[in-house]
Amino acid sequence: MAKPKTPKPVVFDDPNYLTGVIDLLGVICYGEISAWERLAEDAKMAPDLKTKVEIGAMATAEFVHFTRLRDRLVEMGVDPYEAMSPFVTSFERFHKQTGPSDWLEGLVKAYVGDGLASDFYREIAAYLDANTRELVLGALSGTGDSEFVIEQVRGAIRENPSVGGRLALWGRRLMGEALSQAQTVVAEHDALSSVLVGSVDRPGMDLAGIGRMFARLTEAHTKRMEKLGLAA
Amino acid sequence: MAKPKTPKPVVFDDPNYLTGVIDLLGVICYGEISAWERLAEDAKMAPDLKTKVEIGAMATAEFVHFTRLRDRLVEMGVDPYEAMSPFVTSFERFHKQTGPSDWLEGLVKAYVGDGLASDFYREIAAYLDANTRELVLGALSGTGDSEFVIEQVRGAIRENPSVGGRLALWGRRLMGEALSQAQTVVAEHDALSSVLVGSVDRPGMDLAGIGRMFARLTEAHTKRMEKLGLAA
Repeated sequence: MAKPKTPKPVVFDDPNYLTGVIDLLGVICYGEISAWERLAEDAKMAPDLKTKVEIGAMATAEFVHFTRLRDRLVEMGVDPYEAMSPFVTSFERFHKQTGPSDWLEGLVKAYVGDGLASDFYREIAAYLDANTRELVLGALSGTGDSEFVIEQVRGAIRENPSVGGRLALWGRRLMGEALSQAQTVVAEHDALSSVLVGSVDRPGMDLAGIGRMFARLTEAHTKRMEKLGLAA
Repeated sequence: MAKPKTPKPVVFDDPNYLTGVIDLLGVICYGEISAWERLAEDAKMAPDLKTKVEIGAMATAEFVHFTRLRDRLVEMGVDPYEAMSPFVTSFERFHKQTGPSDWLEGLVKAYVGDGLASDFYREIAAYLDANTRELVLGALSGTGDSEFVIEQVRGAIRENPSVGGRLALWGRRLMGEALSQAQTVVAEHDALSSVLVGSVDRPGMDLAGIGRMFARLTEAHTKRMEKLGLAA
């Protein structure tokens, strides 16, 4: 194996933190590859080549993030596919229950999912060691590409206002499913939740703090829906 | 529009050469985006996540090449989607007539197509101005990723030798279709063929030279098939 490029943070001496970080990288890693897959699938529904390319650019950004996270896991001496495996079911369940029935639903899902993931990365970054934080924040870049979605969705609603009601419901369903899967993931992985909650030596969020984090995520979701011209 | 980063080559004063280069970039550009699309589609058939990621890496390399070519066209003041449009039919016809019926056929198509495209880029690079040459050669990098295909195909033949005969036929069909579509494209685009053939001021290949180029491409294809353990 190649010599690790990243020095081992002292905090990795806490085995519980280390397990939690591996879980965290595994869950984000699988999230990225599964987002790549869904976006590439959605691109097929694009009404023209230019729009297909916009979705392709989002998909490609996800794939690049995936490779960075995977390479970091390898550097840490962890099999990335093993680290991802506990989270496959949750993501596949989410995607199965939120399969877009048309192009617009796919667009809204891409936008809402991308935004929610970015917000979540920003929230947890504060509780990570510097190296892991940098990596997780790096998975944010390129997500601004999804801004083109606003135009497309607003245009579709202008043409046919009834679309707005349907997509508003869709957005609510997406957020509901995402939160429900996220809760299951955290509940089933103690080490992962302890990264957020902290330990004696490493301060984290208390339960009220976690509650406030969820409130902030929901608020940001509402703002995103408003940008699309949709009631949250 | 942003200031062009690439100085305008003197040879662009020849309007026929310029049209030919725009055609060439358009055809490669569409080739890359359509390869991206097919690879992302093939990835779904992958037997495991690790193999899916290998195909995803190939797809992502194609997308990155696509964006470089597209950006160069924009820099040249050309609408990239207009430049691509004359070539859409040929590529779609090729892909329609060579839709893989299973995972192994998809792998062989990716490998053979990727190799053929790279060889072709190398062949034509010699007849291009320095800036365009660099761009076209840049579209080669990352294609070595497809080497993992060799293992997969050889493994499948070891397990079931009859697979070898079927895939050999498949490889011949791919090459036949590719050459036939390529001939149509060149025949229908005078400026494009004149980039290869040259003009009074700009030496190119004569007809015999083009014949030799096709012989070299076929020979390289045979070697690739042999690497996969297949008769060409």
